[in-house]
Amino acid sequence: MRNKRFLSIIFFFNLIASYAQTNAPAVLDRIGLDARDVNEKKFDTNLSANNVGQYIKEMSAVPHHVGSPGGKANAEYILGKFKSWGYDAAIENFYVLFPTPKTRLLEMTGTRNFKASLQEPALKEDATSGQLAQQLPVYNCWSADGDVTGELVFVNYGVPADYEKLARMGIDVKGKIVIAKYGQSWRGIKPKVAQEHGAIGCIIYSDPKEDGYFRGDVYPKGPFRPPFGAQRGSVEDMPIYPGDPLTPGIGATRDAKRLDRKDAANLLKIPVIPVSYGDAQPFLEALEGPVVPAEWRGGLPITYHAGPSRNKIHLKLDFDWQIRPLYNVIAKLKGASFPDEWILRGNHHDAWVNGAGDPLSGLAAMMEEARSMGEMVKSGWKPARTILYCAWDGEEPGLLGSTEWVEFHADELQQKAVLYINSDGNGRGFLDAGGSQALEPAFTEIIQSINDPEKKVSVFDRKRSVDIIGAASSKIKKELLAKRTFTLAALGSGSDFSPFAQHIGIPSLNLGFGGEDEGGEYHSIYDSYDLYKRFKDPTFEYGVVLAKTAGHTTLRFADAAILPFDYRNLQKTISKYVTEVIALADEMRENTSVENQLINEKYYAIANKVNEPLLAPTIKTEVPFLNFSSLQNAMLTMEKSTNALSDAMRNNTLSPAMKTELNKKLYRAEQVLLTKDGLPRRGWYRHAVYAPGFYTGYGVKTLPGIREAIEQRNWKEAQEQVDIAAATLNSFSAYLDGTVAELK
Amino acid sequence: MRNKRFLSIIFFFNLIASYAQTNAPAVLDRIGLDARDVNEKKFDTNLSANNVGQYIKEMSAVPHHVGSPGGKANAEYILGKFKSWGYDAAIENFYVLFPTPKTRLLEMTGTRNFKASLQEPALKEDATSGQLAQQLPVYNCWSADGDVTGELVFVNYGVPADYEKLARMGIDVKGKIVIAKYGQSWRGIKPKVAQEHGAIGCIIYSDPKEDGYFRGDVYPKGPFRPPFGAQRGSVEDMPIYPGDPLTPGIGATRDAKRLDRKDAANLLKIPVIPVSYGDAQPFLEALEGPVVPAEWRGGLPITYHAGPSRNKIHLKLDFDWQIRPLYNVIAKLKGASFPDEWILRGNHHDAWVNGAGDPLSGLAAMMEEARSMGEMVKSGWKPARTILYCAWDGEEPGLLGSTEWVEFHADELQQKAVLYINSDGNGRGFLDAGGSQALEPAFTEIIQSINDPEKKVSVFDRKRSVDIIGAASSKIKKELLAKRTFTLAALGSGSDFSPFAQHIGIPSLNLGFGGEDEGGEYHSIYDSYDLYKRFKDPTFEYGVVLAKTAGHTTLRFADAAILPFDYRNLQKTISKYVTEVIALADEMRENTSVENQLINEKYYAIANKVNEPLLAPTIKTEVPFLNFSSLQNAMLTMEKSTNALSDAMRNNTLSPAMKTELNKKLYRAEQVLLTKDGLPRRGWYRHAVYAPGFYTGYGVKTLPGIREAIEQRNWKEAQEQVDIAAATLNSFSAYLDGTVAELK
Repeated sequence: MRNKRFLSIIFFFNLIASYAQTNAPAVLDRIGLDARDVNEKKFDTNLSANNVGQYIKEMSAVPHHVGSPGGKANAEYILGKFKSWGYDAAIENFYVLFPTPKTRLLEMTGTRNFKASLQEPALKEDATSGQLAQQLPVYNCWSADGDVTGELVFVNYGVPADYEKLARMGIDVKGKIVIAKYGQSWRGIKPKVAQEHGAIGCIIYSDPKEDGYFRGDVYPKGPFRPPFGAQRGSVEDMPIYPGDPLTPGIGATRDAKRLDRKDAANLLKIPVIPVSYGDAQPFLEALEGPVVPAEWRGGLPITYHAGPSRNKIHLKLDFDWQIRPLYNVIAKLKGASFPDEWILRGNHHDAWVNGAGDPLSGLAAMMEEARSMGEMVKSGWKPARTILYCAWDGEEPGLLGSTEWVEFHADELQQKAVLYINSDGNGRGFLDAGGSQALEPAFTEIIQSINDPEKKVSVFDRKRSVDIIGAASSKIKKELLAKRTFTLAALGSGSDFSPFAQHIGIPSLNLGFGGEDEGGEYHSIYDSYDLYKRFKDPTFEYGVVLAKTAGHTTLRFADAAILPFDYRNLQKTISKYVTEVIALADEMRENTSVENQLINEKYYAIANKVNEPLLAPTIKTEVPFLNFSSLQNAMLTMEKSTNALSDAMRNNTLSPAMKTELNKKLYRAEQVLLTKDGLPRRGWYRHAVYAPGFYTGYGVKTLPGIREAIEQRNWKEAQEQVDIAAATLNSFSAYLDGTVAELK
Repeated sequence: MRNKRFLSIIFFFNLIASYAQTNAPAVLDRIGLDARDVNEKKFDTNLSANNVGQYIKEMSAVPHHVGSPGGKANAEYILGKFKSWGYDAAIENFYVLFPTPKTRLLEMTGTRNFKASLQEPALKEDATSGQLAQQLPVYNCWSADGDVTGELVFVNYGVPADYEKLARMGIDVKGKIVIAKYGQSWRGIKPKVAQEHGAIGCIIYSDPKEDGYFRGDVYPKGPFRPPFGAQRGSVEDMPIYPGDPLTPGIGATRDAKRLDRKDAANLLKIPVIPVSYGDAQPFLEALEGPVVPAEWRGGLPITYHAGPSRNKIHLKLDFDWQIRPLYNVIAKLKGASFPDEWILRGNHHDAWVNGAGDPLSGLAAMMEEARSMGEMVKSGWKPARTILYCAWDGEEPGLLGSTEWVEFHADELQQKAVLYINSDGNGRGFLDAGGSQALEPAFTEIIQSINDPEKKVSVFDRKRSVDIIGAASSKIKKELLAKRTFTLAALGSGSDFSPFAQHIGIPSLNLGFGGEDEGGEYHSIYDSYDLYKRFKDPTFEYGVVLAKTAGHTTLRFADAAILPFDYRNLQKTISKYVTEVIALADEMRENTSVENQLINEKYYAIANKVNEPLLAPTIKTEVPFLNFSSLQNAMLTMEKSTNALSDAMRNNTLSPAMKTELNKKLYRAEQVLLTKDGLPRRGWYRHAVYAPGFYTGYGVKTLPGIREAIEQRNWKEAQEQVDIAAATLNSFSAYLDGTVAELK
């Protein structure tokens, strides 16, 4: 369900660090290099772009959301395929809450009467767009039931900073309905922050600036969002916990102990609905009050006002809150040497509607990988380790299938899972990859040996060129030119890697191609085979490239004599995060001091413009100096420990038993980065280094306990979190030191 | 005619340097301080906001462009006023070319037929908007006659960088008609650059992003440009020379020797017309070809394509190329002690239509100053130096009145002119001031003693607060907080100071208030009394503040025992410009080197996106190291010389004769900064430090010979210009040293 356009903004901040690490080759299975190359060639030869297209076409033929006949049919289709390819496959069910709409009404009365259509029109150019009876209508899943009437206020993207600006404009949303634009934050943040500020309802719309004609020709002429295209999507408060709201931390089996819905901490109390820009325009035109700041204005041909509206807005929503079955398809290829070491590869199969792009383009690539792997098994090869293919259900409403499965199998996974490789929607373009930075050297080698279909250079070189050309200054370009190792972006949320990485500490990768596949079909009825084939990956070759990238990674980790984890890269990355959080506190201290002076000495009052009045900001608490020394010292220790481990791993005299022991230590190491209590107020997230942001949603926060405490100006908690992170990193170093000691 | 919105962009770059200089008090007439304060109080007491409003109302009652009955009537009205206030006043005529439209046709044929209205609608809310018979229609003055038909291409703002981007998109404008947005450059640059690239015609339109509903509610609900409001304006190539195209460098008297029109170097060869966004939209919708880069897209509800259009565009324009009389009103108040030392104060009186804001709001303030000054004379006061009030005609088409007057009186002015103080349109808000930086300490003192009517703090403090609050970072805010002297922005062009400052080296100031008066009436029929009174300065109090600011400056310079020039401030400013041009060359060297590498090593080709293809840029010549040492040494010398002069000026034992001699030296000093040959290819501009940019128009280029040669990658010329500037600055230092020697 991840929206790549949004992701690219997040990714931008990681760009400078890309290719940042050492040039040392990854520790790979040097004995079997030739065999590996032969194997990978065989694997590649089996792959067929036609098959990828065919899977997408067949599985996108009808809508297939959670609990739908199409969804069940697709699970069975996938199961059948895996079985036919020789896998030990089965469907594993969970039973989750999943609300679908019964009543949807959004209207305005007063100087202008208007009722939103809340309906995406069928197009003759799009064969599946008219399947009205089977489509989930336009809605935000996990909206509360509600029947509210009030004035409307425009809150820009609806993030906390927007409410600070509204307060300076003298506008309060208490008792009002807000309208927010999609973009900047993950959608679920918008109603959550609105609710925190006392709003009684929330409308989210796709502005044509971010998602419509401003970006390019709209569908069907081009791929961008047409006036009445709307974005469905989940508003579960996943930064608290994802998965079934009623079974946090445990698998939602048929008999699991469930919370009362009113007690689920990740559910909203106010109603929220998404609308198209065609539906939004009359509401926005009805707003009075001040003109919004320039950076808030969108692409509609109107003057954007903040509100409130004189007209009354009426929003009425009712849902069918049923428990419904999930169908996870799990297919196993048993390892010949280490059957209890698992390489997991996953992609979800549920969609909001037909989902040709999201998720089927990624799922089809995964299925083609699996088919190729099956062919290799038929011709005599067996992986050393067990390979598991997982087609998840219920990702769209909140990573339901993967989260319940991970929660249910947590102990076994923490024993056996070597690596989880995720994908989701995929398209033409260049690599977008995130994950544990210990994987960087190995992953760099992998993508240096796979070619981009358009440019006939490696996937690595294509991405590197795009980053260099796109860099903002000659200085950054020169830095990127000097770097030869791919940097994996830190993982936030938005797809099924989250429970693996952040809840139980399994090393994870999230892979996808894109950047030449822009469009506006995201979570709409237009995410169809017709649109995909015209605009997203016409030859399905990028499906094949994804299959190669994930497939080679799977193969190398399945067959490696020594697993190619290099924790020096992780250490360097965390060291950068440490520098960042220290700089963040310093910058906030400086800004707070200057801003408080400007407020106290009336500079804001004097500068205030009579035609655009703004109240001064409120005085903020001064930022104390925090004691970061425990963290800084932990980084010194970690640098020594990771270097020592790397040296020890290059020891050629290790016995097979020692290698086996080393491998277990290597793949379980990241679990040591989990903290006992997890993050404050959201203990489900236990990783000390990565989490989705409490106020960004998908967007990652690194060293999240520290960073968010600073951002929220909670100095006591920030200091506590510094010390918790330091202790966790010291445990990690001690774990590595123990590993090194065993090798001697 | 200056567009303040555009100005503010230019000004932004000067912000960091604001308040940058010393805290030392200006050298003022310390003997007469009390008398001065009494005088200024008297001056202020006489000023009436009602009068300001009344002058605006009366002079904006009918259109009054060059050669119109309304223009002549206004000149006579102004003359009558000055005479009634006791001035020795007269109208001084010049005779200049001034084309007005006979035929205007812009149409499209093909898949869609459309004919542009080229007409601004009358509004019942605006009393003068219906004076169709007397209005100059929507046109660009100095367009060539032409009848051209061709495909259309969108060129963004139409500056050279935009054509580089079009070339990368594979689009050539040769033989085509271009459509450019208003903004970024001065309008005359757009057809000039189009012509350089082989276009056969040019349309300039006001995009609602910069100038319409995106900015705020449109007229008559708010002050912003309505759909069929259009911007008239000159496209004379003023960066070559302003004034009458037929009489460069000499006064356009009745019998002056005139060029043939075809030989006038500042006239276009292609037709050009401005249109409203209402008229532009159908043409923009007809464009095919690639979608333009995001930063090119405007605020219309369309997808912006680059073109070319399949439809054919037809542009036919014919003009009446008559010689017409100009009516400059010159009013004199003879100095009691130094009648041959002149303080000049000017503002134009011609408008494109009714011109309530531009120019009458500034002119009305100047008239009220003059009236107050006249009252003081009636009650017995006389200025020590002569004061001249100048109401210029023909500013809008190209600074005609001021330029011809300056060219005609150049020798006398270089003898007598102490200071030229210009204003133009004025409105509610805060000070925007540019000029010779030698005036900074004196000017700072002046604006510290005048109050802002809204905030009851000084004009200085208001502006300082606005700059500080608007600064981009805490670092810049802290720098600005530490600075206590106002920095005068460098003067480019766009109003009548240009011939004084840049052609004959008279110290100049350009003053105006604004920033709380935004609107979209610029150069349209809606620049009316009705709009002005509602949105620009409802109480006319900012007219009074301008009158105080310019009036106190006039008074202080008219009566100063020693003229308060402080050339240390000029030296520090030029020193900053030297640092900038050196950094510019360094930065270009670095960028060129990196970009050439990226082109040669195919990074551009590999990064290229299949759905948004862009050719690689072309290889550029590497940037050599220039020898800046002559300039750097000149700055050292100038620092010593300016310090020595300041010390010498503080000598209290100077005889009256020495003071008189010193004053002449002080006010003529800036003439030493003129170069013999002026700028390459535009010798009319002779100031070594300031000129309007060849490719920016109004926007200033400091150290223009050097800076533009570097920007144009003409390294030989850059080195020559470095040495010319150094020699000029050394002459200036020697001149100051001579002055100091005479004082000993």
